[in-house]
Amino acid sequence: LLTEKTPAKRTDARRNRERVLQVAREAFAEAGAEVSMAEIIRRAGVGSATLYRNFPSRRELLEAILVEEVDDVCGAASTVAGDTAGARLTAWLRRFADYVAGKRPVAVELLEHVERTDPVFETSRDRVLAAGEPLLVAARSSGELSAGISLDQILDLIVAIAKIPCDSGYREPILNVALAGLRRSEEP
Amino acid sequence: LLTEKTPAKRTDARRNRERVLQVAREAFAEAGAEVSMAEIIRRAGVGSATLYRNFPSRRELLEAILVEEVDDVCGAASTVAGDTAGARLTAWLRRFADYVAGKRPVAVELLEHVERTDPVFETSRDRVLAAGEPLLVAARSSGELSAGISLDQILDLIVAIAKIPCDSGYREPILNVALAGLRRSEEP
Repeated sequence: LLTEKTPAKRTDARRNRERVLQVAREAFAEAGAEVSMAEIIRRAGVGSATLYRNFPSRRELLEAILVEEVDDVCGAASTVAGDTAGARLTAWLRRFADYVAGKRPVAVELLEHVERTDPVFETSRDRVLAAGEPLLVAARSSGELSAGISLDQILDLIVAIAKIPCDSGYREPILNVALAGLRRSEEP
Repeated sequence: LLTEKTPAKRTDARRNRERVLQVAREAFAEAGAEVSMAEIIRRAGVGSATLYRNFPSRRELLEAILVEEVDDVCGAASTVAGDTAGARLTAWLRRFADYVAGKRPVAVELLEHVERTDPVFETSRDRVLAAGEPLLVAARSSGELSAGISLDQILDLIVAIAKIPCDSGYREPILNVALAGLRRSEEP
């Protein structure tokens, strides 16, 4: 009977997992891939058993962080603000660029644990494509999107810009140019 | 006296060097970095002594190819056609994108022989920047260039697009979008 969980205990367990994950995401965002499991335990104010029960190894933690990052990007496709369909697509692509720039230390370290063909990588792209497609369709319908480019190509463009090794102040005008080009209807 | 070259012999020597280099550029453009020195000798129809007199090792040949590629890109800045300053800038940036996409196998192999700080890499960027700057200034004067972006940032954008691992048919609409964005004056 001692091992059976009451609803309250299950809620506690879920809250603990969420807390550890949230703390880990913030720690990685601040410090890149240098964050130790001990540091996450310290920041979250939980016991090490709580961390390792939820994430048996660093690999599981890194995967969970990436899955949540993708969840957030996909969720933003429904909630992003903008006066027109084109503005909403642009705002979401900025959010996607932030995700790509931010996830890199986590993704790079995860690649030390799993292959590039790991489902976390394979499915992320598909999920982002599915989430963004309605925004693309809407912007195309409203005549705000440059012809002849697919969401796959748009995401590759944003990824390429997000990977330029520079700070965000240097990157911003580059991203602005790309997004402006998307919303233009004529060829150069 | 036997070692003294007559003007005719010097001209022959220069022609031989140019011929070997031209053949090597074509071979690398077709076959990537897989081309052997023996293959270049065969294609150029020269003796191996002629090749090795001009390019003692593969490293010297790779460097000479890159220097000539940069010469051509820089030269194109003065000769590129277009109805307006903006059109000429755009056309030259397309030429630069072709150069980046094409030089990669040669540059990647050269990095096995020399450091990234080798002058051939360090000076190439500066030479391209100097050659492109008048095109940028002219396009800005004619009001055809998006504000707030430098030539450094523009080149980084084009390089990022040229490095997307895909074929040229897939890349073309992406490059079109970026170039359209450059020629827009409002922010997205």
